[in-house]
Amino acid sequence: MSGAGRPIAVFDSGVGGLTVFRAIRRGLPRESLVYFGDTANLPYGTKSPETVRGLVRSHLNFLARYGVKFVVVACNTASAVALNGLTRAFRIPLVGVIDPGVQEALARTRNGRIGVVGTRATIASGAYQRRLAAASPGTVAVARACPLFVPLIEEGWANSPVTRRVAEEYLAPLKAAKIDTLILGCTHYPLLRPVLRAVLGPRVTLVDSSDAVLRAVRGELAARGLLRARGKRGRVTFCLTDTGGMFPRVARRFLGATLGRVVKVDVEVRAASVVARGRS
Amino acid sequence: MSGAGRPIAVFDSGVGGLTVFRAIRRGLPRESLVYFGDTANLPYGTKSPETVRGLVRSHLNFLARYGVKFVVVACNTASAVALNGLTRAFRIPLVGVIDPGVQEALARTRNGRIGVVGTRATIASGAYQRRLAAASPGTVAVARACPLFVPLIEEGWANSPVTRRVAEEYLAPLKAAKIDTLILGCTHYPLLRPVLRAVLGPRVTLVDSSDAVLRAVRGELAARGLLRARGKRGRVTFCLTDTGGMFPRVARRFLGATLGRVVKVDVEVRAASVVARGRS
Repeated sequence: MSGAGRPIAVFDSGVGGLTVFRAIRRGLPRESLVYFGDTANLPYGTKSPETVRGLVRSHLNFLARYGVKFVVVACNTASAVALNGLTRAFRIPLVGVIDPGVQEALARTRNGRIGVVGTRATIASGAYQRRLAAASPGTVAVARACPLFVPLIEEGWANSPVTRRVAEEYLAPLKAAKIDTLILGCTHYPLLRPVLRAVLGPRVTLVDSSDAVLRAVRGELAARGLLRARGKRGRVTFCLTDTGGMFPRVARRFLGATLGRVVKVDVEVRAASVVARGRS
Repeated sequence: MSGAGRPIAVFDSGVGGLTVFRAIRRGLPRESLVYFGDTANLPYGTKSPETVRGLVRSHLNFLARYGVKFVVVACNTASAVALNGLTRAFRIPLVGVIDPGVQEALARTRNGRIGVVGTRATIASGAYQRRLAAASPGTVAVARACPLFVPLIEEGWANSPVTRRVAEEYLAPLKAAKIDTLILGCTHYPLLRPVLRAVLGPRVTLVDSSDAVLRAVRGELAARGLLRARGKRGRVTFCLTDTGGMFPRVARRFLGATLGRVVKVDVEVRAASVVARGRS
């Protein structure tokens, strides 16, 4: 298969990228989609940048062999720590979720005070903070890692009083900094909208990058003549590195539907050699 | 190096096995210890049995090449899903944490009603429930997966009101079943002792398997003539598959001390091939 007929890949560490997947599925229904969830290795948010880069490199090579025409890196952690460099080195065009989220937040803020929440790795990378500063030097960015949000969502407790307490704790410094816009810097977090809204009040804009990512994907595909403008509805395949876990159950919570075609991708892991020594 | 002079390995998915490591370090101070933490692949508790078995197999082979004389599988999830079969196939003697915990609980219970808490994978494996039933058929075992406990501990919130709320929710069915003994079926959980004690009351015995594991290790080594009975204090090495993450910080919370010698073990990951197709 060549050109526009090939599928678009949506790459994520697990299930969170389904919020982006769903936006692309709705906005570009004729495109065939391959959702790659690295369920054997999730979560990425607690790993070092080096480990995340190794995983992303390996899986993008798999997707290239699979024959996709475009890759959406729907995982914020992977986008934050692994995309620099890869964008040029990789032969298939790709977009991450950081830049679309930053553009959207800058378009929406009125007071120039923008909050960012994400995994430990995403926030520690400083990717959002740097890009906000580069795009709009006067912006005040207040970032906070929220490592309990993902396990709470995956437990099905997105709307529980416990999650409300956790959100109050995490968001206190952002409220104190008087942000008027909050970037949901993790694709799981749109499921926390009701709790975040309750804690932050009605005047703070919540920026979920999935619609901004859809616009970026459409623009990039059109510019390359890769948009599938005619024909019937595209097909969907889920590639998972671990199919025995809780992906199907959690995925139904994200999609509100069953998955359909699921493919297991075998991952070889080998503890190879001692590569560094030190003291800690 | 041959015989008793070689190190004992303590294997864990991450940091939790340090509770077992500490017990062995105190009880067998002349033994050299290698702590292997698979920090690049943690957590195991949310992965499928198949994926956990692949990781354990790979890392035990690494430890065999490293020259250890004995392996303690300090991770409950790995012990629950990967030890059957491995115990015979692997040429180095090993013990897991399940049997010592079961023996300890059976020795302590008075009413024969025993609770078990652990990760999703440990509880789903049924390993504790099966062994309790086999060792003492009249026992009533009440098991509950508590997937939020590990992230709460790793966030440093072991004693927070949020954790208390979560524990109340998780332990309600165990209290209703009138357990008098609770097996802490995850090596992280000893850090929750104050909260578990507060929720369950003073009459429920909390069984942390690390002392029972120490006794099992000492017995197995003595039986094989592998106990290092003389000489100076053994040395300690930490082998981690990801050294960039939060292991050192969290480890200090477990050990109350800095780590010392740390070695990075390179892990190769390759998304290889499509091995199964299905619908979900």
